[in-house]
Amino acid sequence: MVRIMCVVSYDGTNYAGYQIQNNGITIQEKIEQALKALHKGKEVQVIASGRTDARVHAVGQTFHFDTTLTIPEKNWKMALNTRLPKDIFIESVHHVVDDFHARYDAIVKEYRYFVLNRKDPDIFVRNHRTHVRDYLDIHAMQEACTYIEGEHDFSAFCSAKTDIKGSKVRTVYHASCQKDGDQVVFVFKGSGFLYNMVRILVGTLIEIGKGERLPSFIIDTINSKDRNKAGKTAPPQGLFLWEVTYR
Amino acid sequence: MVRIMCVVSYDGTNYAGYQIQNNGITIQEKIEQALKALHKGKEVQVIASGRTDARVHAVGQTFHFDTTLTIPEKNWKMALNTRLPKDIFIESVHHVVDDFHARYDAIVKEYRYFVLNRKDPDIFVRNHRTHVRDYLDIHAMQEACTYIEGEHDFSAFCSAKTDIKGSKVRTVYHASCQKDGDQVVFVFKGSGFLYNMVRILVGTLIEIGKGERLPSFIIDTINSKDRNKAGKTAPPQGLFLWEVTYR
Repeated sequence: MVRIMCVVSYDGTNYAGYQIQNNGITIQEKIEQALKALHKGKEVQVIASGRTDARVHAVGQTFHFDTTLTIPEKNWKMALNTRLPKDIFIESVHHVVDDFHARYDAIVKEYRYFVLNRKDPDIFVRNHRTHVRDYLDIHAMQEACTYIEGEHDFSAFCSAKTDIKGSKVRTVYHASCQKDGDQVVFVFKGSGFLYNMVRILVGTLIEIGKGERLPSFIIDTINSKDRNKAGKTAPPQGLFLWEVTYR
Repeated sequence: MVRIMCVVSYDGTNYAGYQIQNNGITIQEKIEQALKALHKGKEVQVIASGRTDARVHAVGQTFHFDTTLTIPEKNWKMALNTRLPKDIFIESVHHVVDDFHARYDAIVKEYRYFVLNRKDPDIFVRNHRTHVRDYLDIHAMQEACTYIEGEHDFSAFCSAKTDIKGSKVRTVYHASCQKDGDQVVFVFKGSGFLYNMVRILVGTLIEIGKGERLPSFIIDTINSKDRNKAGKTAPPQGLFLWEVTYR
């Protein structure tokens, strides 16, 4: 038995999210089906770094599984990709130590959120960018990002639908936004993120960018620990799980 | 009665092509439905610059129609876009003279074809770029492009399924290809194009890029007037109707 770790990218547009559930097709299901086919019908459970919501994408999601197959490391990638649909792609495959864990061993997770900031939408990126028509003040959003960094209780930025019972203290190592033509890219790196946390942060930053709130609104909202104080949850299609880092 | 001309972009991924047909949803159908809704149930026929195939895109398709509505020119765009699906977008709307014709008055049509030329596919552009794994010799393809330019009988580059009975002589004003990172962009401007002509040209250029053919193969193929001599028809998803020019 060997443990395998994979880096996978997926276009979440046509999925009900990463994690297997009763209503809707999921990424996990497609990956487990591919592994089952490779293992001649035997079920193989995969453990990912975490879940992503419906219509959210990944370029660097990670997962691990155990196998008795003796496929050389370099052949695993093609073996899996030929059994996966066109919107899921295994980027790399690695043999790892027996006690490696894709979720518990992750030390940093990076998310990026892409906004198309111009008058007209661009139909070709409608599933991968969130369209914001109004002018966004990039400097105000950049100032607000600095208040996100650090160790805070992010209760105000956690969906009420969370199943987290314990602490909502998380450390954000990096939060920034940059303008690149008519695109605004938000980058967040942290020890971990609460349910919908990145999307609520972005929703709040957009309100700040529009001038509806001051940058310091982030500080007040963190201190309030009240989800009702924060901005709207930004739509899923701009969000990408970008990278998961291990020791 | 006034005549209106529109520039429309569409993502052809989920359509059976531009032109109304019995099997499959078409762009024309969606536009005519939007116009019918605006005209309180009255049918409005649209005439486009030409058709595009299933899964082919447009950023600058044009069409005209006649209307008795007295909507100000600046309000037409939103009136139409609010009634169209998210993968069709009216870019601009213009009042034109009564005898303007979107098809007959077009003097130049420009098509672009996008290839992703790298080892791995990119799932996020799978519907808008054609993935070519093998190395493509850009200089060989550029030389071949020069042989496409000019007035030629393009019978060899016309699908056997064409309904054109007359001359297959067309003038290509411009044919080129450029490498931009891992993307190769082909540009064709001409007086008109035969059925599948751009896709057969690109399919042949890709064979030249792979080194399977010499650049001069284009000349031999044009002279043969034989569709069986030319390369394979390149897939539809890389193709964009880019611009239609009028006098």
